[in-house]
Amino acid sequence: MSVTYPRGFRAAGVTAGLKASGRRDLGLLVADAPAAVAGAFTTNAFPAAPVEVTRSRLRAGRARALVVNSGQANAGTGEPGLRDAEATAAAAGSALGLVPDQVLVGSTGVIGARVPVPLIAGALPGAVTALSTDGGQAFAEAICTTDTRPKQAAAEAGGYRVGGCAKGAGMIGPRLAPHGLATLLAYLTTDAPASPAAVRAIVAERVAPTWNALVVDGCQSTNDTVLLLAGGAAGGPGIDPGSAAAAALADAVESVCRDLARQVAADAEGASTTLVVQVDGASTDEDARELGVAVAGSPLVKTAVFGGDPNPGRILQAAGDGGVALESARFRASMGGIPVIEGGVVLEDGDAAAPALAEREVLIELHVGEGKGAATVFGCDLSPEYVRINAEYRT
Amino acid sequence: MSVTYPRGFRAAGVTAGLKASGRRDLGLLVADAPAAVAGAFTTNAFPAAPVEVTRSRLRAGRARALVVNSGQANAGTGEPGLRDAEATAAAAGSALGLVPDQVLVGSTGVIGARVPVPLIAGALPGAVTALSTDGGQAFAEAICTTDTRPKQAAAEAGGYRVGGCAKGAGMIGPRLAPHGLATLLAYLTTDAPASPAAVRAIVAERVAPTWNALVVDGCQSTNDTVLLLAGGAAGGPGIDPGSAAAAALADAVESVCRDLARQVAADAEGASTTLVVQVDGASTDEDARELGVAVAGSPLVKTAVFGGDPNPGRILQAAGDGGVALESARFRASMGGIPVIEGGVVLEDGDAAAPALAEREVLIELHVGEGKGAATVFGCDLSPEYVRINAEYRT
Repeated sequence: MSVTYPRGFRAAGVTAGLKASGRRDLGLLVADAPAAVAGAFTTNAFPAAPVEVTRSRLRAGRARALVVNSGQANAGTGEPGLRDAEATAAAAGSALGLVPDQVLVGSTGVIGARVPVPLIAGALPGAVTALSTDGGQAFAEAICTTDTRPKQAAAEAGGYRVGGCAKGAGMIGPRLAPHGLATLLAYLTTDAPASPAAVRAIVAERVAPTWNALVVDGCQSTNDTVLLLAGGAAGGPGIDPGSAAAAALADAVESVCRDLARQVAADAEGASTTLVVQVDGASTDEDARELGVAVAGSPLVKTAVFGGDPNPGRILQAAGDGGVALESARFRASMGGIPVIEGGVVLEDGDAAAPALAEREVLIELHVGEGKGAATVFGCDLSPEYVRINAEYRT
Repeated sequence: MSVTYPRGFRAAGVTAGLKASGRRDLGLLVADAPAAVAGAFTTNAFPAAPVEVTRSRLRAGRARALVVNSGQANAGTGEPGLRDAEATAAAAGSALGLVPDQVLVGSTGVIGARVPVPLIAGALPGAVTALSTDGGQAFAEAICTTDTRPKQAAAEAGGYRVGGCAKGAGMIGPRLAPHGLATLLAYLTTDAPASPAAVRAIVAERVAPTWNALVVDGCQSTNDTVLLLAGGAAGGPGIDPGSAAAAALADAVESVCRDLARQVAADAEGASTTLVVQVDGASTDEDARELGVAVAGSPLVKTAVFGGDPNPGRILQAAGDGGVALESARFRASMGGIPVIEGGVVLEDGDAAAPALAEREVLIELHVGEGKGAATVFGCDLSPEYVRINAEYRT
């Protein structure tokens, strides 16, 4: 499964010595032929060097390889950081026999720390040797930081395969431009013969909004990156934007993103419960997403869920603080299928929802009663463990 | 000191049985003569009943009394909640010999819980008997919830006295309209003979921005209210907007607000360290405030401070995520006076700032290098205790 599920991709994950833990910390993904590629990136005012380098390479519309390190974010590193990112791409290109422009880069880890390029360059030949069509798992492991497990997903549509992996457990927040995104790193592959324009449209319309509906701590990283590479190894006629084949492919890509986003929420730092906030009846899908993020991202809702207390007043407070116009008399909410707010009034029997909070995943439904806008947002509870992790780990 | 420091105000704080703890839970503040009054309120889409009732009474420009309960927020309570707020004002008016329109109301506590009007009505005669020019302390105590201590402040300017008290320890966040505000409850009094227009200008230009520069958990309450009452007992010529006397009074009022906001940050739920984020060189004061709030409100900066780790990369991330345009090459930051970011680059010797984090108050300076906009923002660290309090206490 994962990024090597689609035909035409090989991957590897090795240990270059970048992480003190000694775990895999260098991932390499290679497409057999130039893949159509598009991406979405952080809108943080201080984007990391690999974000700047990769974003500039995407203008060509195609790429062959991606090299990602964990341990150092290469953000807040200035000009030397940009040179390090270019040097990393050049080293990978050299090991693969590709020009550097065909190699994309990614980093995650401590902000302000430079990547040790000699260690990466030294490990790349071994990574190239290790490349395999079964390497998706190792690649997914190599990009992790505080994650307790890799996140991988796959889907199939119309004979095309879609695969993906993601990393991210904290510093995840969606206060973004409509086409920004909200995870650290998510890499998606497909063997569909999609054109660069088709890939760009899928990223803008389906990939970015799905990741923007994920919130852990509301903190948008300097490194957030999602990439979709379409290698075309499945063969058949090319896929252009607006075609039926593009629509089917977009559905499969979105389902992979949603699967991954849910996994990220489930593995979030210190989280014991996944929040699934379903919003309907908003004026627009974007309003619905903002409302869902306001509730799923509220520290007070999150701590209430951690404490096993339905506390629907906090859902009312958080929804009202979402920056979306609401008509109190039409607003309804439920937790675990139990109504807790009706017509803007908190129901006294909201405690009936308490048993639902003991589940591994809690469904919160918000009914706005205005229009047809809808969204599903993934989040998590807030535990003392999140504080402990972030007080001790330097990201 | 507190709200009874200015001449012409009496206050009381009694136990009406609204809080399980048995502590004071009903505050009464009375002006000897009709006081010019203005306020700023939450922009939450679900404002509490006392917010709606008080806001509508402010149109008259003058009021005589304020009754505030703690224990129940009277938010998310619909039409019955509005009737309860009106009944509370009527009961206070009856006990004081005033028409209900001259009585403002406030509530703080559990959202969704109705106020027990019979208990309040039963306690009001005793509160009237207890009214005193020394009652500010008891009033300040009566409006507290998870606060560990009341917040009070006073100042003097040009022969006029200004006093104030505030409550708030959690559910404090500034994602507000320019003239919204960001604490639960803050009540300010002065004996200056300011006109309603002068009081309104001071609230809009000086009071609301100061409270918007306070962030605990970023959650805007349904009940946020700040009121400024000018009783005029100091005598002398009336104070109109734009006059020198109005400017001096505004300075004193702002200093009281700032003092109270700092006290709220210091007593925030679970906090052990106060963050003071000073921003200069932004394009506007509002940009500076947003940037300061982004850093002071960041869970990752807050947990790093709790952990005693300067981690300047998180300051870079949070500042870049503040929605304000920044020129990386001009951006500088320091912690405890030690430079940690220069020209958008995280300095490797940022660890030199570690000793500063052991202090009770930590200064973070952000220099944007764009213009003359400046702000001072108060915040606090994030500890496991915040999570514990909010997992156990229902607000």
